[in-house]
Amino acid sequence: MSGANGHDAVEVISTKRDRGELSTSQIEWVVDAYTRGDVADEQMSALAMAILLNGMDRREIADWTAAMIASGERMDFSALSRPTSDKHSTGGVGDKITLPLAPLVAACGVAVPQLSGRGLGHTGGTLDKLESIRGWRAALSNEELMAQLESVGAVICAAGDGLAPADKKLYALRDVTGTVEAIPLIASSIMSKKIAEGTGALVLDVKVGTGAFMKDADRARELAEVMVALGTDAGVRTVALLTDMSTPLGLTAGNAIEVAESVEVLAGGGPADVVELTVALAREMLAAAGRDDVDPADKLADGSAMDTWRRMIAAQGGDPDATLPVAKESHVVTADTDGVLTRLDALAVGVAAWRLGAGRERKEDPVQAGAGVVWHARPGDSVASGQPLFTLLTDTPERFDRALAALDGGYDISAPGSPYQPTPLIIDRVD
Amino acid sequence: MSGANGHDAVEVISTKRDRGELSTSQIEWVVDAYTRGDVADEQMSALAMAILLNGMDRREIADWTAAMIASGERMDFSALSRPTSDKHSTGGVGDKITLPLAPLVAACGVAVPQLSGRGLGHTGGTLDKLESIRGWRAALSNEELMAQLESVGAVICAAGDGLAPADKKLYALRDVTGTVEAIPLIASSIMSKKIAEGTGALVLDVKVGTGAFMKDADRARELAEVMVALGTDAGVRTVALLTDMSTPLGLTAGNAIEVAESVEVLAGGGPADVVELTVALAREMLAAAGRDDVDPADKLADGSAMDTWRRMIAAQGGDPDATLPVAKESHVVTADTDGVLTRLDALAVGVAAWRLGAGRERKEDPVQAGAGVVWHARPGDSVASGQPLFTLLTDTPERFDRALAALDGGYDISAPGSPYQPTPLIIDRVD
Repeated sequence: MSGANGHDAVEVISTKRDRGELSTSQIEWVVDAYTRGDVADEQMSALAMAILLNGMDRREIADWTAAMIASGERMDFSALSRPTSDKHSTGGVGDKITLPLAPLVAACGVAVPQLSGRGLGHTGGTLDKLESIRGWRAALSNEELMAQLESVGAVICAAGDGLAPADKKLYALRDVTGTVEAIPLIASSIMSKKIAEGTGALVLDVKVGTGAFMKDADRARELAEVMVALGTDAGVRTVALLTDMSTPLGLTAGNAIEVAESVEVLAGGGPADVVELTVALAREMLAAAGRDDVDPADKLADGSAMDTWRRMIAAQGGDPDATLPVAKESHVVTADTDGVLTRLDALAVGVAAWRLGAGRERKEDPVQAGAGVVWHARPGDSVASGQPLFTLLTDTPERFDRALAALDGGYDISAPGSPYQPTPLIIDRVD
Repeated sequence: MSGANGHDAVEVISTKRDRGELSTSQIEWVVDAYTRGDVADEQMSALAMAILLNGMDRREIADWTAAMIASGERMDFSALSRPTSDKHSTGGVGDKITLPLAPLVAACGVAVPQLSGRGLGHTGGTLDKLESIRGWRAALSNEELMAQLESVGAVICAAGDGLAPADKKLYALRDVTGTVEAIPLIASSIMSKKIAEGTGALVLDVKVGTGAFMKDADRARELAEVMVALGTDAGVRTVALLTDMSTPLGLTAGNAIEVAESVEVLAGGGPADVVELTVALAREMLAAAGRDDVDPADKLADGSAMDTWRRMIAAQGGDPDATLPVAKESHVVTADTDGVLTRLDALAVGVAAWRLGAGRERKEDPVQAGAGVVWHARPGDSVASGQPLFTLLTDTPERFDRALAALDGGYDISAPGSPYQPTPLIIDRVD
C-alpha cells in the first residue's frame, strides 16, 4: 500500500483534500507511481479533483511540472546552428496561426520545433489541418526532426510518446473526469511538454473568451503568469500574450480551408486579424530568441516565408501544390435583415465546425478534411438582407441541422448604422 | 459518451465540481450507471471528491440513498410475528455491543436482523469476533435468516451481495481514494443498507472521539441528524445516540476476548460501561419498535438474554460451550509509576490490537482469533508502579514492537490522588 519514501496514494490525496501543501517528495512519488501504474486512475482522478478545488501554490506547480518532465525523455537542440523558439496556443476557433508562423519565424533565422497535437472538442488541431495536404505526414523520428530543423528551420510534427508520458496519461484521465479546468494542471501539462521538448524560447498565446478554455481575462492572466514563471525558472525565455477568442480568427474554421487561408497570409494577403497576430507572435518569438533585429513583416512581403513553408511541407512528404480537398456538400446561411454584424461568437462557430466533421468526438475518430465553416462577414461589417453570412461545408449533409443549431443565437445583426466598438485582438502581455 | 436522460459522467461531475445541486435524474443516472460499469471508477472517485469538498444538501443525500437502495434487492420482514429493530454503530474500539445487544432485545420480544460487516482498519468487525466461536458461520441465505428471526428472534450475519450493490462498489472505491470522510457518502452508505434490509426500527450508535471516524461532536451530530432524517423519511423509525469513543469500550479489544467479555455481560457481569451502553441501546431499540413496556435489565438478570445468545450461536452452527481460541504469545506492559490513569486513548488501543493481528490491512487478509489488547485499568482507576496495565496478545510475536509503538503516548498516569473528571458515555440523543 505504501511506496518509496513511505508515501501512499491515500496519504497524498488526503493532504490535498484537507487543503495541505504537497511536499516535493509527495509530488515526485505520486507522478512517478501513476506513470508506472502503481497509483490507479481512480486515485489520480480524486487527487486531480482535490487539486482543482483546493489549488496548488507556485512551488507545488513547479514540482509537479518537474515530475512530469522527469517521467520521460528530454530533447536538446543546443547542437543546432541557430537559436530555437516555439509557440503554444491554449486553443481557439479558426486558430491556424501556427501554419504561417512557423515558416515565417524560420525565414527570419530562428528555428521553430513545433510539436503539436490533434483537435479534441470544438478547438481545431494543427496536425489535423496539415494532414489535409496530400502526402504530408505528422510523425517524425527525433533524427528527422533535428535534420529538418537544421535544413529548413521549421518543423510542425506530432509530439513523440517519449515526452512527458505522465502528462499524456493524466491528460486523457482529466478529459473524462471533469478535471480539465484546473490552472495548476493546465499550466503543468503545457509547460512539461514544452520544457521537455528543449526549446530555448517560448511564446504563449493564451486565449480569452467564449471560444477559449479561459472565459475571463483574470483567469487567463493567472494561467499566463504561472506558465511564464514555470518556463523562466526552467531556463526557457518565456513570454505570453493574452489574445481575444470571443470572435473566431480569420474567416474559416476547419482543416483544408484553414490551410488555404494560411497560404493566403504567406502570399502577403489573408484576413487582417490573422496577419496581425502572426506578425505579433513572430516578433515575440524572435525577441525571446535574441533576434529582434529582424522584422517578420518583411519576410512575409518578400516571399521568403512562403518559400520556407513550401520546403517545410515538402520535407514531410507533402505536396505544397496539391489541390486541397473540398467538402462534398455545402449550405449557405444568409442575412435575414440589413444591418451591422455586431457579434460573431467563437464558441458557436467552433461547435458548428466540429459538428460538421472538422473535429472529433472521441480520440479515435477521423476528421473530414473538407468540413468546416466559412464566414463572409466579420464583426463591424455591414450586411444586406439575403447576403451570404456563412457557408457550411461537410461530406455528410445529415450534419447540417446540428451545425445550424449551434450557430443559432451565435451572432447579432444590429440596425443599419449601429456603432461597433471593436475589441482589441491583443489584450495583454505577460513576461 | 452520454447515457439515458441525456446525462454523461463529465456533466454530472462538473455540476458538483462547480458547487451546483445534482438533480434527482442526475443522481439516479450516475449511481445506476456506476453499478452497471458504464461510469468508470476514475469518474466516480472524482465525483466523490467533489461531493466531499462541496457537499450535498438533504434532498441530494436522500436521492443518492434511494438510488443505492434501488441498485439491489429489498428485504421485507412484515411476515414476521413480531416487530423488528436493528442497531448500527459507526465503529469503535472494543465495541462488542452488538453481541450482547442482539440476543437481549430478542429476549424482550423484538426481532433483531443484524446484518454486519468485517473490520477494516483499527475498528473491529462483528463477524470477525463471532467467527472465533468454533463452527459459527456468518453467511446465511435469506430463507435461513427469516427462519432464525422467527425461531430465535436474533440473527447476526453477513449482509448478502444483493443489498445495495452500488454501496459495496462505492465503499471499496472510497477506501482507496481518500473519500471516506464525507458525511453525505457515509450517511447514504449506512442508511441504504439498513433501509434495503427492511428493518422496522433502527438505532444508530454514532461514535465520537479519537477512536471514531468522527473526531468531534459537531460533525457526529450532523451525521446523526442526516441519518435520522433519511431513515424517518424512508418509513424506518430511527433514533441516534452520540456516544463516547475517546476511551475504548470495556476492557478488551480483539476477537475471542471480546466474545468472552460479551458472554460475561450476558451472564449479568461485565464492565460497567459495556452494560450501560448495551441496556441504553436496547431501551432505544425496544421503544422504536413500540415495546417500551419491557425492561431489558430484567432480561439480563433472569438469564433469558443468555439463553437467546446460546440459541442464536447454535442456530448458525456455533458451539456456545466451546473453549475460545487463545493467542500463542502474550506480553505485559506494567505501570512505571504510582498514580491515577487519567487517559486511555481509543485510537492507540485500536491500532495496537490491529497491529497484533486482530484486524486486517487488506480486505483479503485473515484475522487472528486470539489477538488483541486487554487493559487492566480504566480511566479514573488508581494504579501502582509495576502493576500490569496492558496484556498484548498475538500468535506472531514479531508484532509486539509495532503494537507497543502504537500504545506509546496513548495513556497518561497522573500523580496519586489526582482528580479525574469522567466523560459521559452517552453524549447526546438525536431523533
